[in-house]
Amino acid sequence: MTTFRWRPEARAGHARAGWLDTAHGSVPTPTFMPVGTVGTVKAMTMDSVRSTGAGIVLGNTYHLMLRPGAERVRALGGLHRFMDWPGPILTDSGGFQVMSLGPLRKLDQDGVTFRSHIDGSKHRLTPERSTDIQYALDATISMCFDECPALPAAPDVIAKSMRMSMRWAERCRTAFVQRPGYAQYGIIQGGTEPELRAESVKALTGIGFEGYAIGGLAVGEGQELMFSTLEATVPLIPDASPRYLMGVGTPDDLLGAVERGVDMFDCVMPTRAGRTARAYTERGTLNLRNARHATDSRPISPHCDCLACSRHSRAYLHHLFRANEILGPMMLTWHNLAYYQRLMRGMRAAIVDGAFAAHADHLRAQWAMDDW
Amino acid sequence: MTTFRWRPEARAGHARAGWLDTAHGSVPTPTFMPVGTVGTVKAMTMDSVRSTGAGIVLGNTYHLMLRPGAERVRALGGLHRFMDWPGPILTDSGGFQVMSLGPLRKLDQDGVTFRSHIDGSKHRLTPERSTDIQYALDATISMCFDECPALPAAPDVIAKSMRMSMRWAERCRTAFVQRPGYAQYGIIQGGTEPELRAESVKALTGIGFEGYAIGGLAVGEGQELMFSTLEATVPLIPDASPRYLMGVGTPDDLLGAVERGVDMFDCVMPTRAGRTARAYTERGTLNLRNARHATDSRPISPHCDCLACSRHSRAYLHHLFRANEILGPMMLTWHNLAYYQRLMRGMRAAIVDGAFAAHADHLRAQWAMDDW
Ligand SMILES: [Zn+2]
Ligand SMILES: [Zn+2]
Repeated sequence: MTTFRWRPEARAGHARAGWLDTAHGSVPTPTFMPVGTVGTVKAMTMDSVRSTGAGIVLGNTYHLMLRPGAERVRALGGLHRFMDWPGPILTDSGGFQVMSLGPLRKLDQDGVTFRSHIDGSKHRLTPERSTDIQYALDATISMCFDECPALPAAPDVIAKSMRMSMRWAERCRTAFVQRPGYAQYGIIQGGTEPELRAESVKALTGIGFEGYAIGGLAVGEGQELMFSTLEATVPLIPDASPRYLMGVGTPDDLLGAVERGVDMFDCVMPTRAGRTARAYTERGTLNLRNARHATDSRPISPHCDCLACSRHSRAYLHHLFRANEILGPMMLTWHNLAYYQRLMRGMRAAIVDGAFAAHADHLRAQWAMDDW
Repeated sequence: MTTFRWRPEARAGHARAGWLDTAHGSVPTPTFMPVGTVGTVKAMTMDSVRSTGAGIVLGNTYHLMLRPGAERVRALGGLHRFMDWPGPILTDSGGFQVMSLGPLRKLDQDGVTFRSHIDGSKHRLTPERSTDIQYALDATISMCFDECPALPAAPDVIAKSMRMSMRWAERCRTAFVQRPGYAQYGIIQGGTEPELRAESVKALTGIGFEGYAIGGLAVGEGQELMFSTLEATVPLIPDASPRYLMGVGTPDDLLGAVERGVDMFDCVMPTRAGRTARAYTERGTLNLRNARHATDSRPISPHCDCLACSRHSRAYLHHLFRANEILGPMMLTWHNLAYYQRLMRGMRAAIVDGAFAAHADHLRAQWAMDDW
């Protein structure tokens, strides 16, 4: 039986290359997790997700509990079987989505009562209920249910919220059913205040989790504050534990966070951008709706082996988006996920090869260049 | 260099199994052509279209001339390269779509002037222009530009329209650039009047085409009249020529038409139905939005090897449609095209095996049965 653990392979400053061993297979890190909100990575088959090199995907507790319901997913064999992804799955706790519901939700010390954005029906999430749902979904990695205030917020608001999240983390850990190869991650909160982040790390490592996530960033604070918060926080996390930066980010964010010791990421950017004709490339981003692509017979990127770049011209992709054809989002989502995975593979290989600093310089120089 | 021709392999009454040899490869007949209106079979990659066994696809002249434009497709290497389909492509003439524009179009003896449904811009199609556009698209099989009145219509209206279409067919033939392995089909018109259909066949065979299509059916006349019209028309077509029934149809329509000697079909039904959660199966149709599928762990069909049936439960597909996820239309379109191709392969194999009558009985008995 597999023990859940992170195994280091190579280092470059704070950056780490390693392996995440789980009950559902091993994943090379640093890794980017495509977002499969309601049990599908939008506009992708799971075969195409696999073909990009993705090793682990994310599911959303809030969406899945409302539709089709955690018990139904469990009855159908769990989320892996349900969505056709035998590899590891990380589920968020529902906390972030529920907190974003605004007037539709009511927070108390025990949990959150909220109304569904789908049909207005009333629901409740508590640390225990969120943990139980993630168990029913059979998540390889469960996340703690926490609260996260929007930034900017006053330090005392952030502190109060963080401390409640730490009490909830203890309840989540008690509710978590330990199984070989499965994990539960604690979520470090505390805004951009180094002292609060340190207090949060101490509280969570005191409880003890298989991994630690940095939450409450990429919520409007800007890249500089995000990076300085990582610099103050990541070194406090036990070296042997995997570190996950939630909801981040642009390719440039990922590079900066890997440089600061982060192993795992998730973000809707590549998939969402793909549906709106925006392509990520080694040379920055392109909008395929732009008229300049209308007669361009070149692929989006000469370095990409995704189906869109192997077979189709920019002109064809431009045409698909102009004609509102479903194949446009399908192709560009595929391309963007392929780019994100290629980016992660490239960073990992450079760490292993002892060439990470030069590789980082190269990536940044390329991003600053004009389209080919 | 390949000569375009239809080669017989086996017969069962009027039904025929054979091969269509073209400049872009050979296709077993009878064959069903998935519709790729604007250069994409909606919600499918061309790899997935290939995986269903499709051998030839259809493109729409009207849509492609408006967007992205025939000259642009030509400059980008032709429709095969543009849409990533190296196999044979049949293009319609634009006639049917233009005639359906109602008040947006004006018909004269020379052609049709119309306004684009996209931006209202003014365009003109004539027999010559339609033939030129199909040449620019590099269609393997070009169709004659014809007129087709909506049924029911008075016999003299149908006769007058058919005779104009026959004069146009002559102009189309003159405009057609003959190339080895390429073809142009004449379109038999004449509504449901056997005499007019006979007159139309005589006119077209007098001109001489590589194949003959039966147009103006499946426009509201009902299956019985469609079949009796086929019975009166198909035997008049030279035996050595491929016969194409345009815009048809349901699985039951296809069986009845194959029994009456038709070799080629196209229809939006499997793709359109797939986008609205309707699945074709050996046991008739299913609506995956129906609540009875919500907890059903079985595939849509136990006989189907499409990605949807190999990997996903009805419950999952139901969930995708309820959540308006793009993967729902992607999976069900794939399934429906796989069913249509399986249906065609099964009919063809039965003709070759000398068991077509029994196979037809079996198909009909199964369609009448309840879902598994
Ligand atoms: Zn690509
Ligand atoms: Zn299927």
